[in-house]
Amino acid sequence: MFMGATTKNGLDIAKKSREIVKDKIKNILGKDIIKYSNEEIGIIERVVHATADEEYAKLIKFNNNPIKNGIEGIRNNCSIVVDIGMVEAGIRYNKVYNFINDKETFKIAEKEQITRAAAAMRVAKSHINEGIVVIGNAPTALYEVIRLTMEENIKPKLIVGVPVGYVKASESKELLCKTKIPSITTTGPKGGTPVAVAIINGIIALSKNERV
Amino acid sequence: MFMGATTKNGLDIAKKSREIVKDKIKNILGKDIIKYSNEEIGIIERVVHATADEEYAKLIKFNNNPIKNGIEGIRNNCSIVVDIGMVEAGIRYNKVYNFINDKETFKIAEKEQITRAAAAMRVAKSHINEGIVVIGNAPTALYEVIRLTMEENIKPKLIVGVPVGYVKASESKELLCKTKIPSITTTGPKGGTPVAVAIINGIIALSKNERV
Repeated sequence: MFMGATTKNGLDIAKKSREIVKDKIKNILGKDIIKYSNEEIGIIERVVHATADEEYAKLIKFNNNPIKNGIEGIRNNCSIVVDIGMVEAGIRYNKVYNFINDKETFKIAEKEQITRAAAAMRVAKSHINEGIVVIGNAPTALYEVIRLTMEENIKPKLIVGVPVGYVKASESKELLCKTKIPSITTTGPKGGTPVAVAIINGIIALSKNERV
Repeated sequence: MFMGATTKNGLDIAKKSREIVKDKIKNILGKDIIKYSNEEIGIIERVVHATADEEYAKLIKFNNNPIKNGIEGIRNNCSIVVDIGMVEAGIRYNKVYNFINDKETFKIAEKEQITRAAAAMRVAKSHINEGIVVIGNAPTALYEVIRLTMEENIKPKLIVGVPVGYVKASESKELLCKTKIPSITTTGPKGGTPVAVAIINGIIALSKNERV
């Protein structure tokens, strides 16, 4: 299997698309392409494939050895905690947790006057420690995970933090880049669930020694 | 509820974001903004909010009275057929069908040598007739739905057809624009699951007389 394709037809499309994407990334990164490892380029290709938006080649940031740490986590069958159902639905892995509709999440959100996305991360705390967090939507979830690492000594193996939008998303991702947490993120307001899913499925493929 | 937000904090972010998005759309559309109805502008705002990519204001096409037809379908509690789980996960509606992992889909894909996404549309045929189709990923699914309308007299109320990618996606959407089917789509390779979900959730909101 390559990129979720299970039929010859689907596989042909995925392969042809990746060739086109490869060229677009070469063009947009220019000489800077040598700054990236093959694995990193593979991850970037998946994101551009998923969005048809080559600008992502310039926006994606890899901080603190995220791919190596992510692969280690996956090989240890760690939990993956996500912010919303659309991310959950896209990840090809057997231990994905989504607490956005959990009873406890509603309670905490109400009591603490925070978003459900943030409350859900608090509920997921034990899974986030030594686990992977994938945030494709909510900046408030990313802020909460960063808080957990700073104030409650929670240590994620990797944060894929690509919340999207014009309110708080850029700022939350800039803060993530300043931490020592292994992370993959984007600069600016762009991001979203397909970006998040493309990144983590790339890391899952690498963990199985499949083509990224 | 507005745009899925259920807490005050979440609602504040959604509202603030929409104000910013409104300005960006005004800038990018310029005088052309008068060509759009308020409902259409609402749908465009949702897409730009979901992607943080204002280019979508120029890419979204409304063909053959799609909003009115979509609202009618929803009010009649019609089926919504989707191409993949990420789209299914995002739609706030009680009759969403996804046949991508159906046994029959695997059989047809194998026998006819087509993608699973296309085969799933064939399996969904009876739901597509008088129903709504939402495609956020697979151009082959969109081609198959168009074929069903032409060769098998299937009549969808609305197609939200925004497959993404550099292979076949643009072409499939251009073909959609040439048909008489009520549709909402994008020009070029861009599209994807958040775009699809933003559009259909906007129409669902309108059908309930909620703010789009």
